[in-house]
Amino acid sequence: MISHSSRQRSWQDIAKQAQKHRDETIAAVQPPVPDVPSDLPLNVSGIPKALLSEREIEITETAPEDLVELMSTGTITSTEVTTAFLRRAGLAQKLTNCLTELLPTRALLRAAELDSYLRENDRPLGPLHGLPISVKEHIPLAGLDCNGGFISWVGRLAPRDAYIITLLWRAGAVFYARTTQPQTLMHLETSSNLYGATVNPFQRELSSGGSSGGEGALLGCRGSCLGVGTDIGGSVRSPAGNCGVYGLRPTSYRLPIGGFTATMIGQEHVVPVVGPMSTSLGGVKMFMRAVLGQKPWLVEPSCLPFEWREGKSWLKEDGEGKKRLKIGVIWDDGVVRPHPPVTRALRGVVAKLATIDGVEIVEWKPWKHDLAWEIIASLYFCDAGAEETAAIDASGEPWRPLSSFIIKENPFVKNRMISDVWRLTEMREQYRADYAKIWNDTACGANAGGAVDVILCPVTPGAAPPLDCARYWGYTSQWNLLDYPALAFPVTKVDPEIDLVEEGYEPRNEKDKYNYELCMPLPSIHSFFKQPTNKSPDEPEKYRGAPVSLQLVARRYEDEKVVEALEYIQQHIGLPFVKMI
Amino acid sequence: MISHSSRQRSWQDIAKQAQKHRDETIAAVQPPVPDVPSDLPLNVSGIPKALLSEREIEITETAPEDLVELMSTGTITSTEVTTAFLRRAGLAQKLTNCLTELLPTRALLRAAELDSYLRENDRPLGPLHGLPISVKEHIPLAGLDCNGGFISWVGRLAPRDAYIITLLWRAGAVFYARTTQPQTLMHLETSSNLYGATVNPFQRELSSGGSSGGEGALLGCRGSCLGVGTDIGGSVRSPAGNCGVYGLRPTSYRLPIGGFTATMIGQEHVVPVVGPMSTSLGGVKMFMRAVLGQKPWLVEPSCLPFEWREGKSWLKEDGEGKKRLKIGVIWDDGVVRPHPPVTRALRGVVAKLATIDGVEIVEWKPWKHDLAWEIIASLYFCDAGAEETAAIDASGEPWRPLSSFIIKENPFVKNRMISDVWRLTEMREQYRADYAKIWNDTACGANAGGAVDVILCPVTPGAAPPLDCARYWGYTSQWNLLDYPALAFPVTKVDPEIDLVEEGYEPRNEKDKYNYELCMPLPSIHSFFKQPTNKSPDEPEKYRGAPVSLQLVARRYEDEKVVEALEYIQQHIGLPFVKMI
Repeated sequence: MISHSSRQRSWQDIAKQAQKHRDETIAAVQPPVPDVPSDLPLNVSGIPKALLSEREIEITETAPEDLVELMSTGTITSTEVTTAFLRRAGLAQKLTNCLTELLPTRALLRAAELDSYLRENDRPLGPLHGLPISVKEHIPLAGLDCNGGFISWVGRLAPRDAYIITLLWRAGAVFYARTTQPQTLMHLETSSNLYGATVNPFQRELSSGGSSGGEGALLGCRGSCLGVGTDIGGSVRSPAGNCGVYGLRPTSYRLPIGGFTATMIGQEHVVPVVGPMSTSLGGVKMFMRAVLGQKPWLVEPSCLPFEWREGKSWLKEDGEGKKRLKIGVIWDDGVVRPHPPVTRALRGVVAKLATIDGVEIVEWKPWKHDLAWEIIASLYFCDAGAEETAAIDASGEPWRPLSSFIIKENPFVKNRMISDVWRLTEMREQYRADYAKIWNDTACGANAGGAVDVILCPVTPGAAPPLDCARYWGYTSQWNLLDYPALAFPVTKVDPEIDLVEEGYEPRNEKDKYNYELCMPLPSIHSFFKQPTNKSPDEPEKYRGAPVSLQLVARRYEDEKVVEALEYIQQHIGLPFVKMI
Repeated sequence: MISHSSRQRSWQDIAKQAQKHRDETIAAVQPPVPDVPSDLPLNVSGIPKALLSEREIEITETAPEDLVELMSTGTITSTEVTTAFLRRAGLAQKLTNCLTELLPTRALLRAAELDSYLRENDRPLGPLHGLPISVKEHIPLAGLDCNGGFISWVGRLAPRDAYIITLLWRAGAVFYARTTQPQTLMHLETSSNLYGATVNPFQRELSSGGSSGGEGALLGCRGSCLGVGTDIGGSVRSPAGNCGVYGLRPTSYRLPIGGFTATMIGQEHVVPVVGPMSTSLGGVKMFMRAVLGQKPWLVEPSCLPFEWREGKSWLKEDGEGKKRLKIGVIWDDGVVRPHPPVTRALRGVVAKLATIDGVEIVEWKPWKHDLAWEIIASLYFCDAGAEETAAIDASGEPWRPLSSFIIKENPFVKNRMISDVWRLTEMREQYRADYAKIWNDTACGANAGGAVDVILCPVTPGAAPPLDCARYWGYTSQWNLLDYPALAFPVTKVDPEIDLVEEGYEPRNEKDKYNYELCMPLPSIHSFFKQPTNKSPDEPEKYRGAPVSLQLVARRYEDEKVVEALEYIQQHIGLPFVKMI
């Protein structure tokens, strides 16, 4: 347990103690978590396989829905599964710095309880029976520290589980790992003064993404198969995309968000959501079904009053029962051009989809995505970041570069009057109505075959960026502003031989220029907070092997449709195109 | 058309011209609207019957769902129905001062179109085919003045129909009458400097209620059978209750609210809703079904994504298919004790319900309804009423007493910082969660038979109050804060012989004292803005014959259940107990 007496100590001491606590929880795992080589390669994703038993590898690389099936039938115990994930998560920490703590004692106690339950009752406790689930740190587990990434908040012990945790627990989950998040929770990366940066398991010079980057890196390493993230501008999808796993940002108020530790509690201008991250699409669906099946709206009244709706297909079916899928493709949002591997991934998916009878591909012209950013960025910190500033400055910890970027250097952050917020909310609603009209119009005129079902687009403007460089949120925050469900999924990996930089490209604006230059070999941009590695940071192949992901988006409330559409796509074209791990 | 040039004229001139315009639209009705006696009695509800033809009376006293059926089958034309309602609405204006204008030309044009449509296509245009629908003034109709009750806003012509109007139009509605609202829209009565006070058709010394009081009085007079009101603290239910008709405040975001003319557009701390008011419960249901059947969420994305859900019963059924209904009764909210006729109405309904096999009655102990008021009143005017103040003061018009009451004299109205609003929103969500727990607990322990289905309670703390006296919102605003669907329905009328004032009652607090004293014969409270009448205002029987209504409330999103429960109750015990008109 981290001590309460944070006020008397320097921020460095508090951070050291937090790291010491983390390391002790990892050291407590039995059999002990193996040591990793001191001279780590850039790509560490394969290392766990060299250090774990075949059985452990098999368990931890099994999809969560299959694990639950195996545990529910008594084929394997939760104790064995939990132990395997504790060990692989411990390795993931040593490789990517993704954990705030492991919970071996309480997890194994819980796993044993569930194993007993199954033996005694001959049925599983619930739809997540025995499954180890990892949790982003700011989602409270009773009695544990909940600091939200701020040094000054260390020592805030959660009085109770967040309601989402209660629901997962009732469904049979085992909580065994808590994961890192950035200072302020408002980066699309994961670095804090408490733990440093969480790095990408496929390329340690790159970011894990964020803000649920601890989850991303842990899942990417297969130290977890199902985790809980949160997303207000891309925080589930960026790390899922950067680390080659699945991440769903549901429509707001589908999943309960009560009880989280964060700044700006009570703001509803841009509603934060909780969302599942998983090594499988089936895991995402299982999570949604398990939580919503418990009718959370009867306890947390902000939740929408419907379960996971899967009785009938969300896709149109033709006379012969064959599903039809109309996909709008956003190649480029008109503000920041995606990097070559992203465009290659899009091209590859679209080319395969185009061959499927029943799939129709149309181009989706992005409509004022720059205005969308202006609106959402204006609504993010209506108190001018006063709560974040207070939480950072209380301990004397330095501002992380991306905290400064999103608050201090963001021209849309102002101390708003109430009437400003009302006007911005009106703009938000107008933008949503305008976008709805565009969507409706895809069923008009020459497109009388029906409206677009889902949008396919980049999830981030490139693969995982170098540390401190994730400065364009538009590909994810767009859907937060519109409150559309959006699902990141892995497609391929960067291959420097074919993903060539477009020489002589003339950037459209400063953001586009910044992003374009991230393609280039860069000497040492923003390297101050980087983790030390043994490779040169200006390695020209710095993105090699980094996962490349895409995003599927449906209209507001159509969370089920976005999942069903990706299932359809996966069945027909197979995804990802390359093995992730 | 009211002229634009309001700036050059005194507020009195603007008001005179608005009234002149209104009177001209009434004078344009053919056959002419009859004159009413110059010496009006206190109860004017029966006068239209003496002045209209039998056929007109029959039409205007038919339930809207039956009228639609008759028009859809060609048994009667929309033209005849519209003409009858235009004439009765004109009378209602002369009796209660409830209109801002009639629309005879456009209404009869539309009716003729619908009649042609039916003849040519042999089917109705939509589920509201041919039905005249009245509309509260601040809900825009394209090209018409939309002043929201402020003199300074006179001359603002609506560029387009509000979306709810478009949906009703597409369903086949005929818009023929626009109704009054109070200055600021934030009274539970209806008086403005534009039109004076709208009075109660059953007792002209009493208020029509508000803020949709023009609708209330018009429906009470049967000058409309279906109208559109809005409600943020009781504004559909107070006038429905005061005037003896049905009024539903749906859950927020069920019906579209885009495009309304009002202050504080964009605020979503307490979401304003639009709701149907009708002479029948069937009218309420028909309205909801017709609007939601058009999937408004595809155009106005704030709308919830489900139609009117009536496939299966919302009430539990026992083995033999008999419905079960568990009702929690609030006799008194613990803050302000209801007047004797309200308690009598409750007792009467409960006594009859108690005899029905399948109905269970339990007492619902109100939980901190005073805190609920504190939270909602704090959230109403987070800019300290700056927008209302600007809109009133721009013309020099005086503040109406109830405008001052709710803004200037309200201790919870403050100029809020953003962080204040976040904290208040947190309090709101906590209050909602606490109330949900109380509701869930009604299924626990000794009450294992199941949770309460609906709450039965007063809709206002008495019958219609004397003018300028509606100063306790708690019985309606409670459900706005909780965002529960709530339905006002008529039960009986005040009978001074049996509704005796409780002598020697010791009020609990200032609000309770004020309300208690409203029972008493009062000399001339707040008589300044009253309409002149020929009866003494201190008539001891001042409430005689005033409708007494109650309210049925369901959990958030259970709009269908609250309607189904009232249908069940009406079928079993018959309501209202006395004929309203």
